[in-house]
Amino acid sequence: MTQAQYQVTGMTCGHCEASVRSEVTKIDGVQEVQVSAASGVLTVTSATEIADEIVLAAVDEAGYSAVRA
Amino acid sequence: MTQAQYQVTGMTCGHCEASVRSEVTKIDGVQEVQVSAASGVLTVTSATEIADEIVLAAVDEAGYSAVRA
Repeated sequence: MTQAQYQVTGMTCGHCEASVRSEVTKIDGVQEVQVSAASGVLTVTSATEIADEIVLAAVDEAGYSAVRA
Repeated sequence: MTQAQYQVTGMTCGHCEASVRSEVTKIDGVQEVQVSAASGVLTVTSATEIADEIVLAAVDEAGYSAVRA
């Protein structure tokens, strides 16, 4: 099991969290997604490591931008 | 045609605007809904006057609170 943290910019509310969670959850291999609009922290748990590019693309798809923390 | 303005508290983003718009649009007789997260202003256009209680209940249903402006 591996965890990766990202810092997301621009989330302001629960709807924003839900949008990010929805897109990141679609990634193959993702087991758990934790996301907080208050802190901007996105934590992705997966069985094997997922390329940052894939996670960042999912966040972009949701309408936000992120960097690996 | 009549227009009524309300001041909504707690909207932070476009998703919030969409939630309010969706609920208020469901009200019988509503012709147009304008809503801004930035200003909090909700403007409801209808053929005949709609009771404030009905609009405020719809905003509450979306998860926000409002007062007649």
